[in-house]
Amino acid sequence: MNIAVAQSGGPTCAINSSLTGIVKEARQNNIEKIYGVKNGIDGVMNERFCDLGALLSTEEKMKLLRETPSTALGSCRIKLEEVSFHPALYQTIFANLEKRGIGAFFYIGGNDSMDTVKKLHDYSVQSGSGIKFIGVPKTIDNDLPETDHTPGFGSAAKYLATTVKEIICDSNVYNLCSVTIIEIMGRDAGWLTASTSILRAHCGGAPHLVYLPEKPFRIEKFLNDITRLHKTKKAVIVAVSEGLKNENGEYIAAAHQSGKCDVFGHKYLSGLGKFLEHQVEVSIGCKVRSVELNVCQRCAAHIASVTDLDEAENIAAAAVRASLSGKSGVMMTIRRVSNTPYKVEYNSVDVKLCANRERRFPSEWINGDSNNILAEANDYFLPLIQGEVNIRYENGIPLHFNIYDEDWTF
Amino acid sequence: MNIAVAQSGGPTCAINSSLTGIVKEARQNNIEKIYGVKNGIDGVMNERFCDLGALLSTEEKMKLLRETPSTALGSCRIKLEEVSFHPALYQTIFANLEKRGIGAFFYIGGNDSMDTVKKLHDYSVQSGSGIKFIGVPKTIDNDLPETDHTPGFGSAAKYLATTVKEIICDSNVYNLCSVTIIEIMGRDAGWLTASTSILRAHCGGAPHLVYLPEKPFRIEKFLNDITRLHKTKKAVIVAVSEGLKNENGEYIAAAHQSGKCDVFGHKYLSGLGKFLEHQVEVSIGCKVRSVELNVCQRCAAHIASVTDLDEAENIAAAAVRASLSGKSGVMMTIRRVSNTPYKVEYNSVDVKLCANRERRFPSEWINGDSNNILAEANDYFLPLIQGEVNIRYENGIPLHFNIYDEDWTF
Repeated sequence: MNIAVAQSGGPTCAINSSLTGIVKEARQNNIEKIYGVKNGIDGVMNERFCDLGALLSTEEKMKLLRETPSTALGSCRIKLEEVSFHPALYQTIFANLEKRGIGAFFYIGGNDSMDTVKKLHDYSVQSGSGIKFIGVPKTIDNDLPETDHTPGFGSAAKYLATTVKEIICDSNVYNLCSVTIIEIMGRDAGWLTASTSILRAHCGGAPHLVYLPEKPFRIEKFLNDITRLHKTKKAVIVAVSEGLKNENGEYIAAAHQSGKCDVFGHKYLSGLGKFLEHQVEVSIGCKVRSVELNVCQRCAAHIASVTDLDEAENIAAAAVRASLSGKSGVMMTIRRVSNTPYKVEYNSVDVKLCANRERRFPSEWINGDSNNILAEANDYFLPLIQGEVNIRYENGIPLHFNIYDEDWTF
Repeated sequence: MNIAVAQSGGPTCAINSSLTGIVKEARQNNIEKIYGVKNGIDGVMNERFCDLGALLSTEEKMKLLRETPSTALGSCRIKLEEVSFHPALYQTIFANLEKRGIGAFFYIGGNDSMDTVKKLHDYSVQSGSGIKFIGVPKTIDNDLPETDHTPGFGSAAKYLATTVKEIICDSNVYNLCSVTIIEIMGRDAGWLTASTSILRAHCGGAPHLVYLPEKPFRIEKFLNDITRLHKTKKAVIVAVSEGLKNENGEYIAAAHQSGKCDVFGHKYLSGLGKFLEHQVEVSIGCKVRSVELNVCQRCAAHIASVTDLDEAENIAAAAVRASLSGKSGVMMTIRRVSNTPYKVEYNSVDVKLCANRERRFPSEWINGDSNNILAEANDYFLPLIQGEVNIRYENGIPLHFNIYDEDWTF
């Protein structure tokens, strides 16, 4: 039997570890050929297959790939149409898989990718093709249901623990009242923003305020929170999720900015952090700075969590085993068996339970004032950021798996 | 004799290494007491002195401080008035130093701090006090004259080499035309932005376009440059210095945004990256993203350059020796003796040559089209980013010297 693997959705630091996990486990199970597909399901439609096993011929290449950010096979953001609307599309996909003798297809992705897995599995059953489709979860947002956490999240949280701690150090240098607003990824789920609360014990209580999209956000309350804190501390540090919404469910930045244009007719461009920065400037008048951590949260491989990379590899290996045991139409999951010692096991659930669904940060871990995270959450977060990668440098520059090679331009 | 040291201006990853360098060398020369001063010259005026030698009592604390970002003693942004305008200020400063038996004062800082060193030295000579004043350079901007480079720059450049390389990986995932604009610190000098050009050989030619404040910037040309590149590559990566100016010397973002307000009367907030992002969106219409790396450039201690930390320590040690040999009114400098092997020596120059003066990126290393850096600059940059720190983690979180300790709230 041959297999194929593709990557989809936004990159994470751990998504390539899942690729090496598939390859490792396939080799141990004498899979004949391991196909890599470029740009997700789009590459299946357009026959952009490579012999991944051959390209990853050495241990050296495997190790380098494991520690390389971004999706080595490229990604896509395609929502498959229902088979009833576009049967030819499904026929093409299955023909392209079948002519290569592919018996199992692994899709490393998030909520939307699980929708693709579900549809392809349903078609496989309905058409009697028998190809197995298995979802391997990844997302820095940690918002997939049915799994304790998602590969990719731990590395993003470790990047935040490191970087936010450094920014807190940086924010304390001047002898004056100041506010530093750190804007963190997460449109609808505040897991990443909440994870910065693990720093409180190490940073003199900072971040002092943490706002998640799970709770309605009021600017007046935010400004009052800061003013109150300034009575006892000079440098107030605030972590905000990019997706904060008001009581009507409208994004804060958008609600205040939409439709406004500059002299050239360009719309107002600033994000939430810059918007809140200006609110503080106008209403409080102290020194204020906002920092948007942006894509570094999903690509800072040099500061990845070893626990995360290991789990991303192991869950993908478990996916290969699941397919060999006959499973299809499932997403692999992580179950946390214990915290001390930290131990997980890998299972699977019907992908229908995961496709297009989101898991929010639990209300019971948010304080009554909706402006900070309770210490109970530390036990959840801390195991996920353990272990530092020892990435290789050449001439002072980090080495990555070379996706610019001709081999990868298939 | 006792000595005192203070830090001033914006933090860097290496500024605390200069602090440990002062302490180490002072100990070797049997300096009696090493005073630390909180918040720069402000702390001298207001008598915020600590016994730095006593606080840094162990090797462990010294090592931790060396690898801690931000200024452990705090900083200030004060321009000393001329002595003729405010003689009492100078009398206070000198009285506070003299009553502690301080014979030499070391000021770790940038252009503005060198102005302070100059004024205090002049007053020392004029008043016959005899206290020595020595400037120890630091700035991530690398814009101090008379020195081959400045401590702090190498670590910022190494952060950029690592992070920009990761962002380039991240930008290549989708199979479509895109532009990624990376906004890098440097209002008037493009050294940091230029340093990203060392990645070209490792990243398939990216960053493909590099714009510095040393050359006038035209939006039309910028858009044409991108359009031309899109003919041969999908993901175009652009590095821009935050301080880009048009032919009239006006900041690009400011020139197009000043005076415009939103519904609340708030001024237009976005920076250069966001502004250029929108220009691309409107004029080219492809996927575009901007990333402002912000303060991480000066505080990402976990990815500091060991060469930089060593030099920051060594130049401060040389400052102590210079004071003991009778020097005052000087700024310490680095002279590059050779590139292979990389070798430097530490000298000093009259601080007048450095105070309030800036050194720009050399025109001869900018290409004729003013949109990239010539390979000749690699030999300058590469030695400065060599060596990776091995910082300590506790429970997955980086350990820093604890500036939240009560000892440090003097």
